[in-house]
Amino acid sequence: MKPINIGLMGVGTVGGGVATVLKRNAEEISRRAGRDIRLTIAARRNVEQARELVGEEVAIVADAFAVVDHPDVDIVVELIGGDTVAKELVLRAIANGKHVVTANKKLLALHGNEIFARAQEKGVMVAFEAAVAGGIPIIKALREGLSANRIEWIAGIINGTSNFILTEMREKGASFADVLAEAQRLGYAEADPTFDVEGHDAGHKLTIMAAIAFGIPMNFGACYLEGISRLDGRDIRYAEELGYRVKLLGLTRCTEDGVELRVHPTLIPEGRLIANVNGVMNAVLAKGDAIGPTLYYGAGAGALPTASAVVADIVDVARLMTADPEHRVPHLAFQPDQLKDLPLLPMDEVVSSYYLRISVTDRAGVLAEITRLLAENDISIEALIQKGSLSEGTAEVVLLTHRVKERQANAAIAAIEALASVTCPVVRLRMEELNG
Amino acid sequence: MKPINIGLMGVGTVGGGVATVLKRNAEEISRRAGRDIRLTIAARRNVEQARELVGEEVAIVADAFAVVDHPDVDIVVELIGGDTVAKELVLRAIANGKHVVTANKKLLALHGNEIFARAQEKGVMVAFEAAVAGGIPIIKALREGLSANRIEWIAGIINGTSNFILTEMREKGASFADVLAEAQRLGYAEADPTFDVEGHDAGHKLTIMAAIAFGIPMNFGACYLEGISRLDGRDIRYAEELGYRVKLLGLTRCTEDGVELRVHPTLIPEGRLIANVNGVMNAVLAKGDAIGPTLYYGAGAGALPTASAVVADIVDVARLMTADPEHRVPHLAFQPDQLKDLPLLPMDEVVSSYYLRISVTDRAGVLAEITRLLAENDISIEALIQKGSLSEGTAEVVLLTHRVKERQANAAIAAIEALASVTCPVVRLRMEELNG
Repeated sequence: MKPINIGLMGVGTVGGGVATVLKRNAEEISRRAGRDIRLTIAARRNVEQARELVGEEVAIVADAFAVVDHPDVDIVVELIGGDTVAKELVLRAIANGKHVVTANKKLLALHGNEIFARAQEKGVMVAFEAAVAGGIPIIKALREGLSANRIEWIAGIINGTSNFILTEMREKGASFADVLAEAQRLGYAEADPTFDVEGHDAGHKLTIMAAIAFGIPMNFGACYLEGISRLDGRDIRYAEELGYRVKLLGLTRCTEDGVELRVHPTLIPEGRLIANVNGVMNAVLAKGDAIGPTLYYGAGAGALPTASAVVADIVDVARLMTADPEHRVPHLAFQPDQLKDLPLLPMDEVVSSYYLRISVTDRAGVLAEITRLLAENDISIEALIQKGSLSEGTAEVVLLTHRVKERQANAAIAAIEALASVTCPVVRLRMEELNG
Repeated sequence: MKPINIGLMGVGTVGGGVATVLKRNAEEISRRAGRDIRLTIAARRNVEQARELVGEEVAIVADAFAVVDHPDVDIVVELIGGDTVAKELVLRAIANGKHVVTANKKLLALHGNEIFARAQEKGVMVAFEAAVAGGIPIIKALREGLSANRIEWIAGIINGTSNFILTEMREKGASFADVLAEAQRLGYAEADPTFDVEGHDAGHKLTIMAAIAFGIPMNFGACYLEGISRLDGRDIRYAEELGYRVKLLGLTRCTEDGVELRVHPTLIPEGRLIANVNGVMNAVLAKGDAIGPTLYYGAGAGALPTASAVVADIVDVARLMTADPEHRVPHLAFQPDQLKDLPLLPMDEVVSSYYLRISVTDRAGVLAEITRLLAENDISIEALIQKGSLSEGTAEVVLLTHRVKERQANAAIAAIEALASVTCPVVRLRMEELNG
């Protein structure tokens, strides 16, 4: 069968990984795909550096547009990132009738609706396994493996940098700032870590998973984002005393009132498998109505794991590129005319349990006041511990609530903060059982 | 698009689950598949019982051959089990040009080579996601998700009954016999549990995964099987003291000398995610050269989880049944002419670490004798604990070895058992780090 020609745009860490995997595993890949897959042309401004990464036999150009316009290229791999020039290149590749494989979560979360519509018109495929959770084949699992299910919710540890930081904070008792500095030294965090630690990256990935799980358009704008940068090591310790681990989760749930789409630090019972996913590793827990809970775990970043997903997409596309589009799996799992614009639930309407830490001055009756305010807001308490000694003038009340609407939790928190004996803003973390 | 007609053979627990999922999630499934999928005909000897499980709108026949011969049936679902009549039915369905979805691990492990060859000749698909690890889409993950990788090894907890028993033995300190009785009462174990607890079922599933991972024919006959029925609760406790959990693992590894294919109780470091998969749940840990270790977790049995896999296969087959076979994923991941008959490694040649428990009488120098015999067989010791008191006349020496060939371990064990001071056969369990 005719070999498939790959054009690569963006030859950095992951691009080098793709070249390595295609070369090293050429025989295995060809034995599986039933055709040879060869990297024909690659684009990077610095041609010499690209040469070192992709080897002698690949044509190298400085201008990525030369790749999308190249007549021999069957599949374009976009690893440039961002949503400016990458968007232009992907749209042009589609216009040129080329299939696209991309790892660009931001591009899809922000412009996926447009890109998939164009691809549909032109009858080409846009594959994006590498955009979510690196090497883990989670897109394939959600889109094909769970196709018999109504997917109820997904909870993912989908940002390795944040998970590394949270793991170190717990294991070493270190502060966010100290661990961040270490992560930067190790290359696990960028010089500007905002994108990772404030939840943007996880939000992009979550947006893509929600679209596939529920058959809705991409709607990153509606995603609630709360990062880990203000997380206090004390809360990780207290959570542990109560039997919980704190993880930055991307959570999406389909409820009768709308779809939840939220990224925030979350307490998870320590017995859950996902609570024990540590370091830079990723995991996605998905609940289907037939299959129940199911978890997918692996490396969420890195040259070779990400290349594993990119090349798996290439094999999939290579198999189906000459087939009638009706034989293909729809980009967003559901047929394009079957997407539903379900309402996105505002954060105020989301139902969750809460961890609250309240700093109080030594005054008789303060606990009674707090519990009264919670009761007035229909919030019942699941557990309560008191830290520090009231006799020394201050103490901390740490409590876990049952499930209530965020609006109620906010009202109760505002009322508690208005108490004279409450000395600081209340620390509030959300808590998920992840069992049903 | 034309609806797809399903013919179901075997309407028991899982068959009822398939009918339920197809009905309950008909809208979601059709929105994904782009065509309606309807259960048209079902076969079960007891027609009344079948009627209760599949509902009024499905034709019911007593003779399963009426399903495979039915002109309107596009896809035959085989849920009868076993390898006698099920084999006949599957081969006849293929001969009739029908696509087949099956959950029958035994049939494929024993007769898969013949079945896939016939399917290839007739240009039909045989899909079998439900045959391994129930609802977990592990076949899809290994075959498509990891297609860029040289898969190095797979380790799976793939028998829920055994995992339930081991979990209860550990958590309650109960004996195998007591927990088995409880499992039978709960419906987690059959009246004759041999198939589950002696590793046959896991061996069938492992055989299928090895074929897909390494591109080799099915070779269940070469699979080493050792079950959990003779496992002593003491060894689970001692393993835990040393930082390990005991799991019944199916293990397959591609080495330079051949393919390992073995099922046995295995010590795993307690920090590994897979060591914490408890109860009836299943998990498969696969290591690819690009992706690294990756884990898939979920329900390995049960009506709805298994139906989740069966119906996902139906959707896959429905999409591709009218496509040119070159657009399909090969049954065993590799193109049929690209399978390699790699040698299977005899158990004597397998390299592993070992847990040994040696019962000794009180005699000065017995430890020196044991360590000398190990050294003579080039076996070094990683950890050693002594249980019981030598002063009371007997003691147990528990030790962990470094990695050696099973042949060496056997020789050392035989020599140790020949010592006058060794009172019982040595208990030997294998140990795997599962980290590279």
